[in-house]
Amino acid sequence: MKGYKNILVAVELNSKTDAEPLKHAEFFAKEFGADVVLVHAVEHIGSYGAYGIGVGFEIEEILIENSNKEMKKLGETIGIPEDKRIVKTGPAKFVILEEADKINADLIIVGSHGRHGIRVILGSTANAVLHGAKCDVLAVRLKE
Amino acid sequence: MKGYKNILVAVELNSKTDAEPLKHAEFFAKEFGADVVLVHAVEHIGSYGAYGIGVGFEIEEILIENSNKEMKKLGETIGIPEDKRIVKTGPAKFVILEEADKINADLIIVGSHGRHGIRVILGSTANAVLHGAKCDVLAVRLKE
Repeated sequence: MKGYKNILVAVELNSKTDAEPLKHAEFFAKEFGADVVLVHAVEHIGSYGAYGIGVGFEIEEILIENSNKEMKKLGETIGIPEDKRIVKTGPAKFVILEEADKINADLIIVGSHGRHGIRVILGSTANAVLHGAKCDVLAVRLKE
Repeated sequence: MKGYKNILVAVELNSKTDAEPLKHAEFFAKEFGADVVLVHAVEHIGSYGAYGIGVGFEIEEILIENSNKEMKKLGETIGIPEDKRIVKTGPAKFVILEEADKINADLIIVGSHGRHGIRVILGSTANAVLHGAKCDVLAVRLKE
């Protein structure tokens, strides 16, 4: 095994669900001297039914702003520099795969939710990422 | 990260496609002192259109016999004892998830094929496993 050099971690900016995926990234980073990039996708509000003209965009802007703040906090806490923290709008799958391509990721780490609950309705990000990824994918099972 | 203790590796009994997933298993086995169990599913022939009465079963028996031989060879080569080599008939997804449950696997390693080619028609085993797994899944991207 050659080991990983460029790891992309998809974060939800939720300390509970991000903890395990981040621990795994830390392990590989230490083990192989890999670079770690964090990515968070802010899904378009329109798809969740905010139909008032302008309302969706306003909410989206607030979400992006909050995500940027949370990402900054997270990055500073675990020592990931600013240029390795990415917040983008778009469906999680596409954002993750696009950023993986950009950094030439050899491993994507993504939290994997159970089959029950809202994730099933929204579609499983882990599955979607795995389907399109050109590199290894480690899906870290999150506790329900 | 606590590390893995019980690793299930889904093998295709094809030296080309099994090499990378097995290297990853070896890495974790050394790193964490994990047990490694190999599993191979022989898919039911019936589903692929052998409709002659009895023919499907005969082919299936030959496939099982060959798989057992190949599994023995593989196990002996990489030092996996007989009780940790499993050949079962059934859809790969179910066989893998069932055996993972039995050994209380904390990691399933499975080769992940590209989105093109026959695997798309048959359905991606890696995706199917990820969808049903109760533990972490490492999908190792195989070269096309």
